Amino acid sequence: MTFHSMWAELLPVGRSSATGGYRRFAWTGADAECRAWFREQAEKRGLTYEVDRNGNQWAWLGDPAAGNAVVTGSHLDSVPDGGAFDGPLGVVSAFAALDELRARTAEFTRPVGIVNFGDEEGARFGLACVGSRLTAGLLTAEQARRLTDADGTTLPQAMAAAGYDPDAIGPDPERLARIGAFVELHVEQGRALDLTGDPVGVASAIWPHGRWRFDFRGEANHAGTTRLTDRRDPMLPYAETVLAARREAERAGAVATFGKVSVAPNGVNAVPRLVRGWLDSRAPEQDTLDTVVTGIEKAARAHADAHGVALEVVRESFTPVVEFDHALRDRLARILGKDTGLKVPVLGTGAGHDAGILAGRVPTAMLFVRNPTGVSHSPAEHATEDDCVAGVLALADVLEGLACR
Amino acid sequence: MTFHSMWAELLPVGRSSATGGYRRFAWTGADAECRAWFREQAEKRGLTYEVDRNGNQWAWLGDPAAGNAVVTGSHLDSVPDGGAFDGPLGVVSAFAALDELRARTAEFTRPVGIVNFGDEEGARFGLACVGSRLTAGLLTAEQARRLTDADGTTLPQAMAAAGYDPDAIGPDPERLARIGAFVELHVEQGRALDLTGDPVGVASAIWPHGRWRFDFRGEANHAGTTRLTDRRDPMLPYAETVLAARREAERAGAVATFGKVSVAPNGVNAVPRLVRGWLDSRAPEQDTLDTVVTGIEKAARAHADAHGVALEVVRESFTPVVEFDHALRDRLARILGKDTGLKVPVLGTGAGHDAGILAGRVPTAMLFVRNPTGVSHSPAEHATEDDCVAGVLALADVLEGLACR
Repeated sequence: MTFHSMWAELLPVGRSSATGGYRRFAWTGADAECRAWFREQAEKRGLTYEVDRNGNQWAWLGDPAAGNAVVTGSHLDSVPDGGAFDGPLGVVSAFAALDELRARTAEFTRPVGIVNFGDEEGARFGLACVGSRLTAGLLTAEQARRLTDADGTTLPQAMAAAGYDPDAIGPDPERLARIGAFVELHVEQGRALDLTGDPVGVASAIWPHGRWRFDFRGEANHAGTTRLTDRRDPMLPYAETVLAARREAERAGAVATFGKVSVAPNGVNAVPRLVRGWLDSRAPEQDTLDTVVTGIEKAARAHADAHGVALEVVRESFTPVVEFDHALRDRLARILGKDTGLKVPVLGTGAGHDAGILAGRVPTAMLFVRNPTGVSHSPAEHATEDDCVAGVLALADVLEGLACR
Repeated sequence: MTFHSMWAELLPVGRSSATGGYRRFAWTGADAECRAWFREQAEKRGLTYEVDRNGNQWAWLGDPAAGNAVVTGSHLDSVPDGGAFDGPLGVVSAFAALDELRARTAEFTRPVGIVNFGDEEGARFGLACVGSRLTAGLLTAEQARRLTDADGTTLPQAMAAAGYDPDAIGPDPERLARIGAFVELHVEQGRALDLTGDPVGVASAIWPHGRWRFDFRGEANHAGTTRLTDRRDPMLPYAETVLAARREAERAGAVATFGKVSVAPNGVNAVPRLVRGWLDSRAPEQDTLDTVVTGIEKAARAHADAHGVALEVVRESFTPVVEFDHALRDRLARILGKDTGLKVPVLGTGAGHDAGILAGRVPTAMLFVRNPTGVSHSPAEHATEDDCVAGVLALADVLEGLACR
């Protein structure tokens, strides 16, 4: 099967020898290698290759201008030290599913597209799904141009350095209007399929989720000579807030994580003047998420006050609950269940995806491939070869059901 | 007084316009500017200028080879976003005190030296007092050559890039043997003199202190999809340990600080695989410090175990209590009290100094200048002009008492 050779080709790109994890950040050298790989796959299959105004890559079988196209794909970038599957599995499976359909000598009645959305993880500029957000008009060109990475490089500078035109970015309603259905295949990032014992499932909804930045500002001071009572140490309310987040999430059946911290001046012998922590929180329902975040913020404020520390909380991003198109979801479940008569699992997810962004514009669905440990955003992320092949065949069945005679 | 013009000259060097704090890190451009300033001050006074094998700068009045020299000085480097006084006050005051003695037409009976010790703060390579430690033989050349900064640059590479010879570094017993007394003037980094109402005090001892690195290793994972019960999140035991450190220090009358943190992968949507926190702890007595650190480590281990997180604790540096030479200390107190008959305050300190390193090799003393807020290692660090002048005159009196007829 072509899946294996494509997978092997992509495997070394952007992989850190120190951690075994991937560092495929938007508009870097590793990203360019992934993009060159995508273009090569498109061209060697005789597909029409194009890059849209936002740097997303497309490969077309048939004429997209005919409309009502069926599009599949995902992204190739990674979180810092991420796994091999999150993103690439959807793109590689898309090409492999097309190969499978050609081997079946399927007769296509609708154009079929494969897409690689740029900068899905937001690892470099701090905002996820930049490529699909721009295309869907959910992020303006002005907002995107203000994005800056940790080194002070702006998104336009990074795009230009990679050979793309930052002046061109913006909404792309015409391109979206050509799409009749978008189906993203993705490795599951939890253990639901492992618990039900199924290799493939269909998504029901994406939990509402957001990112909040907590800035604790105290007073820098000498760690050896400043009496404890004279300190305004922002590390202390930060630590209390980390623990409060866990308690609030546990109580509500949600998740809440402080995974990123920035400290200034960050010296061993200095009480910090600033501890900045980022909260990521998600819940099955909006009300629950509101309760969790309000509870965390309340605790943070009480502890900051107790230590004479100022607190500012900024909501950096927020995505409401995304219900995938019910008709498309049910159609996928029928297609996948047709041979076995078994019910295909339909599951919610706490992870954001380009499919979640597009869902507000075009009928969208997702397929998940079993992840035996549930581990994701880590070098240990895994799916078995058998399950990957099952994913490719499921995607081929879906494309056949939607786009073939 | 020459103090003011020297102070004004040094003030802009290595100052961040963003924070108002200083970033004078060893062997950087800002450090080179400070060093050029020192050399210029030596030469314009007709002092013999020399750089020792470890990159420490010396300016001599009289022939140091004669022995029994009186040396004063401090350092010019800074912590990240440090204040203007910590270090430079001692060097500027040394030159100003020499000018004052010449104005008094003092007759010198012993050689007098002014020193600028390199890399006192350890901001770049993580180890404090590298220049004086090397000279005193408390850090071997092999150990120093293994020091590496956050960008992966080694100490030898940094020294070579700044035009110094890293092959030459090592102990310098002959140079130390020439010194009969070392007196370091320093801004106070606490509020003891403010509370007693004195502009200048004499040091009694430096508290024992050390740095411990706490590595909490868990499992990187997706922050949106990993159930709380499936997580091994190292941020949680880290947060518990920060709070335990405060409790243990409070109970014991010591200080304990987590001022530096490093997180991997440090992504908003990733449960970290590693949280590394550095503990700085100091106490008036060794037993107390041992109790505090043992208590913190015990709490850290219990919380790490509870979260399935591995913990490694490494003591990165340790300095036992330093009692300054009693005879020299009493002589300074007599000299400073001679006109007023008042008792000069004698105080302990939690801060490490080059004087603490040298104290094991030569008779050493310290003068402190009042710091009205006690704030240090911060752009807000301050001493009044009047108190700085009082410090210069006190240092001149001490040098006159020790080195003049």
